[in-house]
Amino acid sequence: MKSFKKLFTSKSKTHSPASSFKIGGMGSLKVLDVIPSPEDDSEKLKKAFQGLGTDEDEIIMILGHRDASQRKQIRETYQQLYNESLIDALNSELSGDFRTAVILWTYDPSERDARLANGALKSKKKGVKQLEIIVEMSCASSPQHLVAVRQAYCSLFDCSLEEAIAASVSMPLKKVLLGLVTSYRYDKELVDMDVANLEADRLHEAIKTKELAHDDVVYILSTRNFHQLRTTFECYRKKYGNPIDKDIMKSGKGDLESLLRMVILCIDSPEKHFAEVVGTSIIGLGTDEDSLTRAIVTRAEIDMMKVRGEYFNIYKSNLDDAVIGDTSGDYRKFLVTLLGGKM
Amino acid sequence: MKSFKKLFTSKSKTHSPASSFKIGGMGSLKVLDVIPSPEDDSEKLKKAFQGLGTDEDEIIMILGHRDASQRKQIRETYQQLYNESLIDALNSELSGDFRTAVILWTYDPSERDARLANGALKSKKKGVKQLEIIVEMSCASSPQHLVAVRQAYCSLFDCSLEEAIAASVSMPLKKVLLGLVTSYRYDKELVDMDVANLEADRLHEAIKTKELAHDDVVYILSTRNFHQLRTTFECYRKKYGNPIDKDIMKSGKGDLESLLRMVILCIDSPEKHFAEVVGTSIIGLGTDEDSLTRAIVTRAEIDMMKVRGEYFNIYKSNLDDAVIGDTSGDYRKFLVTLLGGKM
Repeated sequence: MKSFKKLFTSKSKTHSPASSFKIGGMGSLKVLDVIPSPEDDSEKLKKAFQGLGTDEDEIIMILGHRDASQRKQIRETYQQLYNESLIDALNSELSGDFRTAVILWTYDPSERDARLANGALKSKKKGVKQLEIIVEMSCASSPQHLVAVRQAYCSLFDCSLEEAIAASVSMPLKKVLLGLVTSYRYDKELVDMDVANLEADRLHEAIKTKELAHDDVVYILSTRNFHQLRTTFECYRKKYGNPIDKDIMKSGKGDLESLLRMVILCIDSPEKHFAEVVGTSIIGLGTDEDSLTRAIVTRAEIDMMKVRGEYFNIYKSNLDDAVIGDTSGDYRKFLVTLLGGKM
Repeated sequence: MKSFKKLFTSKSKTHSPASSFKIGGMGSLKVLDVIPSPEDDSEKLKKAFQGLGTDEDEIIMILGHRDASQRKQIRETYQQLYNESLIDALNSELSGDFRTAVILWTYDPSERDARLANGALKSKKKGVKQLEIIVEMSCASSPQHLVAVRQAYCSLFDCSLEEAIAASVSMPLKKVLLGLVTSYRYDKELVDMDVANLEADRLHEAIKTKELAHDDVVYILSTRNFHQLRTTFECYRKKYGNPIDKDIMKSGKGDLESLLRMVILCIDSPEKHFAEVVGTSIIGLGTDEDSLTRAIVTRAEIDMMKVRGEYFNIYKSNLDDAVIGDTSGDYRKFLVTLLGGKM
C-alpha cells in the first residue's frame, strides 16, 4: 500500500485557490507521496476509457488523488497526447452525478466556478439557493480566486459575470451580488476597531430600519476585508446581544434576508456554511446532488477537515457517514475519495 | 549608430499593460534590436550612479530604451547584484521632475499606477483633475491592468483601493469611481445594438433629468465593454444630435459633469484624452509637470503615436515641439526619449 500524505493547502506555491486561499486551513484531499508523471496518468486514463466499459475505479484512483496543479498538468498532457480534451472524454465516457462531479473536479477551479455561476444564472430555478455559488466565490474564497473566476467568465461566455448577474437577478439581490463579485478585498490581517464599532452600529441601524440593501450595507459587506468583517460581526454581537445573522433573519423572511445571512456565514465561518450546504443537501427526502457535489468538490482542497468538524457540531453525526448513506455507486466512491476516505 | 525598432505592443506576450492592452495601438518607445543583458544594464547603471556626479545621459540611454518586461528584469537583476533597490538608487541619485519621471517609468506599471492613485487620494489638492489617474486606469486600460493595480494597491498600502476611494472622495464622485475601479469588463469585441440603443436612451434621460450619478449611469459606464460603450455613444450622437460628453457639459459645470466627461473621453478615445492632458499641462502659465510626466510615462508603450496625432488635430501643433519648448535639462531629454525622439 502506498503511503498517502494530507495535502495542506499552504504548502503549494501555485496560484490555484487551494494555495492562495487564506481563510480555510486544510483540505481532505489525499495525494500520493510520489506522483506519477502526467504522461503516465494520461495514458492510464486513456486506457480506462477504452475497451468494453469504462474503468471508473481507475479514473477515481487517478483524478481523485491529484491536486489542482497536478490535474491541470494532466489536462494539458492528455490534450497533447491524444489531441482530445480530457473533459470531453470524461463527458462521453461517464454519466449521471458521477460524471458531473468528476468533470467539475477536473476543470481548473476558476473555470469550474465560472461554469457553476453561469449555470446558476441561466437556470430556470430561481431563488437564493441558486445563487449560493456566487456568494461562495465572493465571500468564502480569496480575492485572487474571485478575479480569476471573473476572467474565466469573460473568456467562456459572451459577457462579464456582472452583466450576467444584472441581466438575470432582480433588485435588491442584484445590488448585493454586484457589490460582492466586484470586490477585491484587502487580503492581509488588519483590523481597525473603530471601523468595526462604527460599522457594527451602521449594520444594526440598517437592520432596525429594514434597509438591508442600503448602499452602506452593500459597501461594508462587499469591500471590507474578511478579518475586519469578522471583528465587526463580533462587535455587533457584543453590543446588541445577538449574532448579526440571527437579527437579520428576525427582521424578515424574504430572499434578501436569506442572501445576507448566507453572505455573513460565508465570511464569518465558511466551514459552517459548507457544513450546512452538505447537511441540507442530504437531510430530508431525496438528495440535492448538485449542492453536495459542489460543496465537496470546491472545498476538498481548502477546508474540508474543518467542514467535517462543523458538520459534527451542527448535526451531531459524521459527515462521511451521511454522504455514504445518501449516495451510491461510483458517485459515492468519488466523493468518499475526495473526503480522504478509502475506496 | 545602432538601429532602433518601434515597439509594437501587440507583439509582446507578457501580461504587462503594454501587451495586454487592446484599446490603443502603438507606443512611441524605441527599443534596440539587440538588448544588452540585464546584468550589463545593471552594471552600467551602477557605474552611472558612482563617482563624481551622476551620469544622467547613461541612465536615460538605458532605461529610456527598455520595455516594461526588460525594466522588470533590470530591477530584479540590480537588486540581486547590489543588494539594493534600483528605485532607491534612482531616488538618491536623481532629483526634481527628472527623478519623478525616471522612477515612475522604472516601477512595474501596476505598482506605478497604484502609487499614483495613492498619491492622488492622499493629496491635499482636491478636485476632479486629481482623480484623473483613477479614471485612466479604469477606462483607458485593460481589465487585466486594472486588476493588477488593485492587487498592487493592497500589497503596498494598508487597505484596498476601494476603501481608499471611499475614505477620501465624497459623493457623488465616490459612487462613480467605486463603480469604475471595481469593473472587470468583457474584453472581446462584441456589441449588442439593442443594448446600445436602450442605453443611449437611458443616458439621455439621465442627462435630461440631471440624474448623472443614477445607478443605471454608473452601471452602464462601469460595466459595459469598451466596444459596446463606443457604439452606445455613437448611437447617442445619431439619435440626439450631440456627442454625449458635450450634452453632459451643457447640463452642468460641477465636478460630476467633469468627471463623467473624462470617463467618456477615456473610453471613447484614450488618445484624445491624453492629448488633452499633455496640452493642458503645457498651455498657459507654467507647466503641470506631474500630469505631463504621467501622460508620457503611462502611454509611451501603449498609444503615444496616436496621442501625437490627436494632439496635432486638437492644437494644430506638434506635441514633441511643445514638450521640448516647455521642459528643460535631463527631464526634457528623458521625455523626448520616451517619445521616440533623439536625445
